[in-house]
Amino acid sequence: MRTIGARRWAIADGYIPAWSRGREPQMTSHDTVCILNANAEEAHIEIVLYFSDRAPVGPYRVTVPAERTRHIRFNELCDPQPVPLDTDYASVISSDIDVVLQHTRLDSRQQELALMTTIAYPAPAAG
Amino acid sequence: MRTIGARRWAIADGYIPAWSRGREPQMTSHDTVCILNANAEEAHIEIVLYFSDRAPVGPYRVTVPAERTRHIRFNELCDPQPVPLDTDYASVISSDIDVVLQHTRLDSRQQELALMTTIAYPAPAAG
Amino acid sequence: MRTIGARRWAIADGYIPAWSRGREPQMTSHDTVCILNANAEEAHIEIVLYFSDRAPVGPYRVTVPAERTRHIRFNELCDPQPVPLDTDYASVISSDIDVVLQHTRLDSRQQELALMTTIAYPAPAAG
Amino acid sequence: MRTIGARRWAIADGYIPAWSRGREPQMTSHDTVCILNANAEEAHIEIVLYFSDRAPVGPYRVTVPAERTRHIRFNELCDPQPVPLDTDYASVISSDIDVVLQHTRLDSRQQELALMTTIAYPAPAAG
Repeated sequence: MRTIGARRWAIADGYIPAWSRGREPQMTSHDTVCILNANAEEAHIEIVLYFSDRAPVGPYRVTVPAERTRHIRFNELCDPQPVPLDTDYASVISSDIDVVLQHTRLDSRQQELALMTTIAYPAPAAG
Repeated sequence: MRTIGARRWAIADGYIPAWSRGREPQMTSHDTVCILNANAEEAHIEIVLYFSDRAPVGPYRVTVPAERTRHIRFNELCDPQPVPLDTDYASVISSDIDVVLQHTRLDSRQQELALMTTIAYPAPAAG
Repeated sequence: MRTIGARRWAIADGYIPAWSRGREPQMTSHDTVCILNANAEEAHIEIVLYFSDRAPVGPYRVTVPAERTRHIRFNELCDPQPVPLDTDYASVISSDIDVVLQHTRLDSRQQELALMTTIAYPAPAAG
Repeated sequence: MRTIGARRWAIADGYIPAWSRGREPQMTSHDTVCILNANAEEAHIEIVLYFSDRAPVGPYRVTVPAERTRHIRFNELCDPQPVPLDTDYASVISSDIDVVLQHTRLDSRQQELALMTTIAYPAPAAG
């Protein structure tokens, strides 16, 4: 079966709400990138974060095993440094093989949760 | 009229909330793939699920009649096995003819519901 | 300036919630297709609805004036027939010139509202 | 590293809710375009707004520094004129270099917030 996805992706609206309500960890406010690696090989991923008022930070390195998905909360990234809360950011995600990315935020700052999702922006393959 | 859609699609953020509140079945928490088959022929669909910590499961087989839509809750897939709740997954959906896919989640774990949707990721046509 | 958009679009997840709470018309539950016509000419649009268990209905005809947007609630379509509530549907939207489509649902069945949106699926230009 | 993004984008569903509840500014209802400029040069952006019943307004001019993101609330645009509340609009966003755009709305008109997001519609590169 052919591979599916792209090697470079972007998410322009990064934001981790600063507080949460409800049962942990499901209801903890989070900003997530879901990565699907449908290939027969491990994917090596690099995430670079962009901010409004400081230099980019990264790469954060992540691997996704062959034929697996990983749903990574930006909240949990810590090397080279944790992602600040209540701060606008964006990300560019690069992989050595094709993967599919979806961006989802769960916001539980108020009593009830709010959800949003979008397939991330895939860069067209290099010509 | 020309066909519309693609033959392979992916959804990276699969997740079925583990509990629900409110009137059934409308308010039951669900993770749904909506499939539009605008063709004059039946579409034969295969869904493969990917997990973070186990081998892929599938294919689940679904048909969508000619000129019909089906909104399929992952909660309802049962062959070869039910989809576990409160578990990260992803999916690749293949069809023998062009279809259009949209991914929607309704989360009613708290008193009020939350919704999210995105057009799924379409694989470019094979060169 | 060049035109922007596509001439055929699809929305796979159509659904009008059957009830609402809150101030009308802003808080009335609705399923909306937002159409942007950035051209110097009027756009002539045709919408065909697909269902799970009956033949397609349409076309519904809509015009969008030059350099205008129209946010059309499916709830308000009535010719050739109103769109049933609490019923799964999908739509294919065709235009004689390039337009941009976004699909948004506001669900106010419970005390608080829920929102979801996605750019619709654009058919690639005919080769 | 190659650039990522496109030079022309559209958002068909613009709408700023007319009222808000909760802590400012995080909980103020807003309609936002998040712009990522991953290039080594500043991006010069022009936003034109389209309405249902009046001529287009703009361009609003915005810059995004090299390797930065800006999350711009339409609520805050004021030159050539503020964006009216509770009014349907759409936008075309042009940049002199490739950028990535995501559209997000936070609606806090009721006690609890609602969120929606989508990657904006990118115009294919000129042939």
